[in-house]
Formats: sequence, C-alpha cells, structure tokens
Amino acid sequence: MIKFSPERRINGSESSAVDSVDLYSFGIREGISETIISTGLESPNAAPIGIIVKGGRTFVRLFKGTHTWENVSKEKYLAANVVYDPLLLVHSTFFDLDPSEFDYVSVHGLNFPILKTALAWVVFECTDLKNTDHALVADLTPVKAGFNEANWKSLPVPNRGFNAVLEATVHATRYQLTGEEKYLKLIRHYESLASKCGGENEKKAMKLLYEVLGL
Amino acid sequence: MIKFSPERRINGSESSAVDSVDLYSFGIREGISETIISTGLESPNAAPIGIIVKGGRTFVRLFKGTHTWENVSKEKYLAANVVYDPLLLVHSTFFDLDPSEFDYVSVHGLNFPILKTALAWVVFECTDLKNTDHALVADLTPVKAGFNEANWKSLPVPNRGFNAVLEATVHATRYQLTGEEKYLKLIRHYESLASKCGGENEKKAMKLLYEVLGL
Repeated sequence: MIKFSPERRINGSESSAVDSVDLYSFGIREGISETIISTGLESPNAAPIGIIVKGGRTFVRLFKGTHTWENVSKEKYLAANVVYDPLLLVHSTFFDLDPSEFDYVSVHGLNFPILKTALAWVVFECTDLKNTDHALVADLTPVKAGFNEANWKSLPVPNRGFNAVLEATVHATRYQLTGEEKYLKLIRHYESLASKCGGENEKKAMKLLYEVLGL
Repeated sequence: MIKFSPERRINGSESSAVDSVDLYSFGIREGISETIISTGLESPNAAPIGIIVKGGRTFVRLFKGTHTWENVSKEKYLAANVVYDPLLLVHSTFFDLDPSEFDYVSVHGLNFPILKTALAWVVFECTDLKNTDHALVADLTPVKAGFNEANWKSLPVPNRGFNAVLEATVHATRYQLTGEEKYLKLIRHYESLASKCGGENEKKAMKLLYEVLGL
C-alpha cells in the first residue's frame, strides 16, 4: 500500500485532517477541479461537480432543482471529495448513493458527510450566494480538509479511458437535458476510448452509463 | 508540501527506490497508462508513450523510426515516468528535452535516465521484442522503481483541461502524420476545453501545440 500524507501528518494514523487548508496541496488549483461534492446534514447526497478557481477566487456553480443546490441553499456547506473511481463517478451522477457510503467529520460543530472512498476531502463554507436563472453561484472558503491514506493504494497515472468516462458522463447529463443527437455521438466516441484505454472499472462504468441512457 | 511514499520508504530521504516492483502501486494498471518514456544510455531521450496492461501482460508498442524505438531496439531498457505536467507532455512530444532535465538511476550496472520532474518512475527490461510493419512490440519486466517525493506538491485531481491537452497531443501527432482535417477539428475542440477547464499550464501547453502545428 502507498501512503500519501501532508506535511503535518498525524503519525501512526491512517487518516489525517488539517484545519488550515492549503487548497493547492489538495489539488484544487486554477481551472476546474472535478470532484464529487457531498452535502446534506440530514440526508447525505453526492454528485460530481467542478470546483472553479479563477483569478484567485474559489467558487462553485450549482444547478437549480438538484439535491446539492437544495442542501447548499439551506445549510451553506459542501465537501469536495477527490475520487478516481469511474464507476462511482457515473453512479453518483445518476443515482443516490447508499447512506453507508458516507463518513462524517466534525466541522464548526456539525457532523458533515464526506465520501468513505475519497482520497482527500475539503469542507467549504459557502458565502455570497448569488442566484442566476438556472443556477446558484457560491464563493467557497475552505474550513477543514483531510487525506484518507487508507484509500491510497495506487498512484493515479493519467489514463485516457478514465478521462473518457468523465467526458461521457458530462455529455450524458447534457443529453438527458436536451435529447440532442450530437451528445450521443460524443458519448459513443468516448465509449470506444474507455474500452480501448481503460481497465475493468472504466468498462463497467460505461456499461452503467449506457443502461441509464437506454442505449 | 505533500509527501507521497511507498510502504518501504527510506526514512528521511526525499526520494526512495524499490527493487521489487508492485506495478499497481505505481499506477501502472489494466488498460493504457499514459507515461513519458525515457531511454538512451548515451544520449537521453523522452517521449509520451502508453504502458499497456492486458490480460496480465505488460507491454509497449513503439513506432519505427523514433528515438525511443532505436534506443529500445539496441539497449532493451526503458523507464516509464509518471508526470502531470501538460507543458512537458507537449514539449516532449515535439522536441528533444535538454540533457539537464534527466536524472540517472543505477539499474543492472547501468546509469539509466529518468525525468527529474517525475512523480514516480519504473525502469523496465524489454523482452521478447517483435517487429510488426510499423512498430516494435516489447514485453516489459519491471526491475526498479521509485518515487520522487520532492515533486509531490499537489494531489492530481481530475481536470478536464489537463485531459484535453493529452487528447489534443495525441490528435496532433496523427495530424502531422496524415494531414487529415478531422484531427484539426478535434484539436480545436480540445483547445477550447483546455482553455475553459485548465489552468495557466494547460493554456501554455496548447499555445505551444498550436505553434508546432502552425495554427
């Protein structure tokens, strides 16, 4: 097993948490970092959403009507989970995760849900919430973060198959919204790439995605 | 700074090497792992090439006429370097790296070149070399591997911008070979994605790629 640990690692512990968060060391950097966001103090929920860093500002855009949007509007916290599991990516896009897939961390006196299989997680407080026609935009202030060293079994080496599952999932949500044929064409392109360059998990993930879309 | 270290880490050292290599822990897994391959005992060379794992067999396919093909044919060793740098990805695809960008590790009595900025590296012995019309296929046996902990400053979180640079680079090499318009169309699609989802390095990498192609 590989261990991945921050400078201020708690010796002997399988996981570690820090209160002063250097976002860059957690991989949240300029551009859009693709994470799975967990929310919901009463009923935990998870969905793949990008954390945007632009001109020194860290924020998120949440589509209205989603569970994540509902929870953040009400509770004003979210956790970004770093996950390299293509199957969980597709699963959390289209289905509710089982409550057993969440762990809880103590943040500002709350028990906040994070994903058990996350390699790392950052809990953010959401401030300056602004509603647009279709979305909520919220600024993010990191309040607590941690690494789950027990989940570090393999170094994430770039894999075009994994990347293809990510692209296919993005296009699948657009296809569900619009029904436009161009998205199906892209999904089929990425299915072939996932099959060629991915491993078993990428293939299972694309199979699930095809089932969801009725392909 | 984040530290990433294998179980049998050499305490106090900034980098560590192991002789018995568990490929999975180095991220070389089923499917195609996109690494930058370094070769050449006399004159070090580097180029992005995938390590293929299929049905328990680890192998590589090297196109005839390339420096990597020439070096492996003659010396029968190669090193897979794990790198998350979009600029180095594009640079090493189209240009020779400077000799100062390589470090050397001792393997079977040889001084073998690896990349200074690699997060991790695995040196393989190449066996059972088979020539096809356009390529050389070689089975790979790992002989030594290591982590460069000093290079672990940030957790690699999935980023569609980085992934887009990888795709654009693949299509750019095909465009150079064939001149087919369909590759240009794909490259332009990925340029827009790199610009939207990537950071400064993704933008610099795409700028370099456009310069190379004369776009």
